[in-house]
Amino acid sequence: MSTNEALLTLEGWYTYHDFRKINWEKWKKATQEERDAAVDELQGLIRTWEANEQEQAGSTTVYSILGHKADLVFMFLRPTMQELDAIKTAFNKTKFADFTDVDYSYISVVELSNYVHNPGEDPKSNPHVRERLYPILPKWEHICFYPMNKKRDGQDNWYMLTMQERQEMMRSHGMIGRKYAGRVKQIIGGSVGFDDWEWGVTLFANDPLEFKHIVYEMRFDEVSARYGEFGNFLVGNRVTSESLQAMLQL
Amino acid sequence: MSTNEALLTLEGWYTYHDFRKINWEKWKKATQEERDAAVDELQGLIRTWEANEQEQAGSTTVYSILGHKADLVFMFLRPTMQELDAIKTAFNKTKFADFTDVDYSYISVVELSNYVHNPGEDPKSNPHVRERLYPILPKWEHICFYPMNKKRDGQDNWYMLTMQERQEMMRSHGMIGRKYAGRVKQIIGGSVGFDDWEWGVTLFANDPLEFKHIVYEMRFDEVSARYGEFGNFLVGNRVTSESLQAMLQL
Amino acid sequence: MSTNEALLTLEGWYTYHDFRKINWEKWKKATQEERDAAVDELQGLIRTWEANEQEQAGSTTVYSILGHKADLVFMFLRPTMQELDAIKTAFNKTKFADFTDVDYSYISVVELSNYVHNPGEDPKSNPHVRERLYPILPKWEHICFYPMNKKRDGQDNWYMLTMQERQEMMRSHGMIGRKYAGRVKQIIGGSVGFDDWEWGVTLFANDPLEFKHIVYEMRFDEVSARYGEFGNFLVGNRVTSESLQAMLQL
Amino acid sequence: MSTNEALLTLEGWYTYHDFRKINWEKWKKATQEERDAAVDELQGLIRTWEANEQEQAGSTTVYSILGHKADLVFMFLRPTMQELDAIKTAFNKTKFADFTDVDYSYISVVELSNYVHNPGEDPKSNPHVRERLYPILPKWEHICFYPMNKKRDGQDNWYMLTMQERQEMMRSHGMIGRKYAGRVKQIIGGSVGFDDWEWGVTLFANDPLEFKHIVYEMRFDEVSARYGEFGNFLVGNRVTSESLQAMLQL
Amino acid sequence: MSTNEALLTLEGWYTYHDFRKINWEKWKKATQEERDAAVDELQGLIRTWEANEQEQAGSTTVYSILGHKADLVFMFLRPTMQELDAIKTAFNKTKFADFTDVDYSYISVVELSNYVHNPGEDPKSNPHVRERLYPILPKWEHICFYPMNKKRDGQDNWYMLTMQERQEMMRSHGMIGRKYAGRVKQIIGGSVGFDDWEWGVTLFANDPLEFKHIVYEMRFDEVSARYGEFGNFLVGNRVTSESLQAMLQL
Repeated sequence: MSTNEALLTLEGWYTYHDFRKINWEKWKKATQEERDAAVDELQGLIRTWEANEQEQAGSTTVYSILGHKADLVFMFLRPTMQELDAIKTAFNKTKFADFTDVDYSYISVVELSNYVHNPGEDPKSNPHVRERLYPILPKWEHICFYPMNKKRDGQDNWYMLTMQERQEMMRSHGMIGRKYAGRVKQIIGGSVGFDDWEWGVTLFANDPLEFKHIVYEMRFDEVSARYGEFGNFLVGNRVTSESLQAMLQL
Repeated sequence: MSTNEALLTLEGWYTYHDFRKINWEKWKKATQEERDAAVDELQGLIRTWEANEQEQAGSTTVYSILGHKADLVFMFLRPTMQELDAIKTAFNKTKFADFTDVDYSYISVVELSNYVHNPGEDPKSNPHVRERLYPILPKWEHICFYPMNKKRDGQDNWYMLTMQERQEMMRSHGMIGRKYAGRVKQIIGGSVGFDDWEWGVTLFANDPLEFKHIVYEMRFDEVSARYGEFGNFLVGNRVTSESLQAMLQL
Repeated sequence: MSTNEALLTLEGWYTYHDFRKINWEKWKKATQEERDAAVDELQGLIRTWEANEQEQAGSTTVYSILGHKADLVFMFLRPTMQELDAIKTAFNKTKFADFTDVDYSYISVVELSNYVHNPGEDPKSNPHVRERLYPILPKWEHICFYPMNKKRDGQDNWYMLTMQERQEMMRSHGMIGRKYAGRVKQIIGGSVGFDDWEWGVTLFANDPLEFKHIVYEMRFDEVSARYGEFGNFLVGNRVTSESLQAMLQL
Repeated sequence: MSTNEALLTLEGWYTYHDFRKINWEKWKKATQEERDAAVDELQGLIRTWEANEQEQAGSTTVYSILGHKADLVFMFLRPTMQELDAIKTAFNKTKFADFTDVDYSYISVVELSNYVHNPGEDPKSNPHVRERLYPILPKWEHICFYPMNKKRDGQDNWYMLTMQERQEMMRSHGMIGRKYAGRVKQIIGGSVGFDDWEWGVTLFANDPLEFKHIVYEMRFDEVSARYGEFGNFLVGNRVTSESLQAMLQL
Repeated sequence: MSTNEALLTLEGWYTYHDFRKINWEKWKKATQEERDAAVDELQGLIRTWEANEQEQAGSTTVYSILGHKADLVFMFLRPTMQELDAIKTAFNKTKFADFTDVDYSYISVVELSNYVHNPGEDPKSNPHVRERLYPILPKWEHICFYPMNKKRDGQDNWYMLTMQERQEMMRSHGMIGRKYAGRVKQIIGGSVGFDDWEWGVTLFANDPLEFKHIVYEMRFDEVSARYGEFGNFLVGNRVTSESLQAMLQL
């Protein structure tokens, strides 16, 4: 039964969250010309990513991050791991990258868990399903990212439950999510075998309190209360190419 | 029921604790002119923050921190995450920032948990509630900051309790807090969805032993004894713009 | 009985995973001549490793790694620990190594657990067994590496089970693995006494979703669900000497 | 009842352990004049600390630390947190500090737990109590420092015990300590609300095996066996101003 | 009874494992003359250590370490902590030390646990006991080092067992060890009160598979299975002054 379940999860685009800290001291020590060249080159990359999105060949977004953990996150969705790797290498070859430090990133694949499955149906032929597997990232004001596991600890072992028990808990969990429809957009990245946690969750909202409310409300739901393990949370604000330019202006 | 509860928590200003270590070696290698310019620019920022506080558009305070974890903490309360981000960027662009290292910060929102709620009441119309959600930070001698979670571990799982059980425990907890009224001022920052712990607690007191007494006394209370998980504690002394000037004088 | 079991595990080549981050800033600051010399020297090493593989005296492979944890992994299989150490020292003496940082590696020995053993048989005389103990690493598109332990935690203590209980669970585990035959190639490195975890697992596949599916499906198997503890996961793409050259070209 | 207990703990001087690593490479690169000036300035500070001790306004001691974790520990006892902070700043402004790295410290307050209390008595009027709250640190050959918590984990939750249960266990614990009277001197620093653990324990002995024996013997006592959680241990040798001079001589 | 037991453990020489990473980039940037001088000075130290060993006043050995965690380990046994500290300081003053980074070490004392004790006997008068407390380190091909604790976790609490229960388990544990006599030499360092774990175990063997076999076989023994907690494992190859010279030759 667990075998069937694994087959019922659908995957879409591969996902790469690239969190960068700006080395402001180095940035200030650069000449205005060096900074201009670095920003121009970065803006060129951004235009490439925008073109990729318009061709429906992926999606990219940029947010600032609050606090000391990072200054910017670049979130990339692409059809293959090779493309994600090429983006990393290309980014690291830019002048701008020399002014940044990287100590966090996340690799996953957009995932749609589909516990109720009608045999004979090809889920990927459903446009609604395709929109969720190959999403164009929203231009909302705020982002929240966190990785998570399902716990395997003594009596609280998600992976020892029956499929029916898991389905019932996930259904109740999904109902909380649905209450936030239109206010919180959620991208679930499956990362089993790819990164250190089982999932990487990205939320978007125009009001950051929505992040607090949905995560807190879900925490009382048995699936999170007993079975959720959460990593670090990062929160940020939307960055356009104009506001990025302003942020980097001295 | 858990759904209602989430709605009963009130939020006020967003909060940013920015902990900085001074790179004393670099500071000493700078010329007196460079140091003067850096201090002047920093004092200018402090005046901006004071003006913001006088306009009731936020509140800011500065304390030194004991031990090796940091030398200074800048604590900012502002209406939006965008303002907190702008403060970080502006600070990082200053000369003074080049003489500091940052490896800790905390993002939260001032939170008032209100388990007993009278329907029909608009809590934010209550001036006492407003004072607690949009507080002007006190000028007391000492600060203590620590983040915390409610535990979800086997039999000790806060999020699996009924609302009534949680209310009773929180009431007893609140009664300990009330005994310290006038001696300890507490700002609770909710950080679910924003940072790595569920809450960030900031205490102010004129006698640092009050921090020890209140935290220790509460630790015997079931809500902390069984359900509290605590992160790092940082403690410090009040810094005025004069004492900051003296601290940075060689 | 546990004594017998230890004797039934077969070991082959020692294994060294060397994960390297490229210091791109330093690489860019080097002259074209320095970079060319570094790449030439590295390509020379790669040819040495290829010659070693053709002599069946070991096997070596190179993959890029996604995300911030590393840029490249060099995986070496050799008959002795002295050879692995000599490889490390030789690599560190190259010019290319000066452009890299190392903060992760793994030491193990290729291991074949053989719980069902016919007395009188010499397992190493079996060519199929030899192929698994002294494997030539496949040239598949993707690699996945993670270390793991068997848990010893309260009721979930693998090492307190009887040999029969362990055999039954491992048999069911092996049957999942067999379903992926031809799509996932697995190298089990035993690292008890050598490195921080009990095993280091390397998977190869042409489709990275296979990694996700096999690891996730196994996670529901009791041996992983109750007894598996997993370290960090790293995933990457195959690098040939040509694509490595291109990756390092500015 | 827990409230009373909190009041029965007595506090004395605030305590600051400042652990420093010497950057030997930088020290060797300095000129003899620079080194002499740095040592002279440090010796001047030490004389200040000795004067403070002779005025009974605090106590200070210096030990070397074995292994890689630190090279020296400066342990300061002072009446206020402001003085501890001023000491840190003054130290960091010295030339010697530029040749050191700091990545560990500890903040606490000398604490005397007094579970049996006669009402009407003022404990601080007792000279024996005063000696323990405001101790002049001994000039013994060796130091041992470690932080600790009382556990709150499932059935092993110190803070859920009754006061009587805790008193009985602490009495038996104290009896082990008394066996080492004259051979081990113990300073208990309470750090709830001040630093990352609940207590910081400093032991002094002329024979370092006494540290091993007392800590090991206590570990079998229920209060440690079931309820003790221990952080890192650091051990060192006494440093006089003469031996410090020799240590820093090239 | 626990009191008696503590007294029954015998201690010999203090032990210092000094793990060093070579900074190859710095080493290559040095001139041949600088490197020659550094190696000569290091070889001089090694001769001092050899003289010390011939005078039976201690023992010293050097091994390379596999993987990224270190390149070399220097293991020192000496009668006092003052000598270990003097060795560290003398080493750090050498030119060679400037080409190394240190982020791991271990401090312990050679320990012989002697649960069965005949009253009236002076164990240190026994030459066999003396050989084990003041051992001359073997010149075998491989080293393995790891620290460990006895667990105190819920039902698995070593320190809450009776002495008889512990004796029986240790006896069965010792019988496994005895099977490896002549193939694995084990030095147990007691580090309660000295370093972060309760013991530091050093194994020597000519075949590194022996490390894997003994540690794995012991892991099924109840004393390890239920009560053992293990830190990082480091494994390495023997280094003579000749092979060290070759290793450092560019």
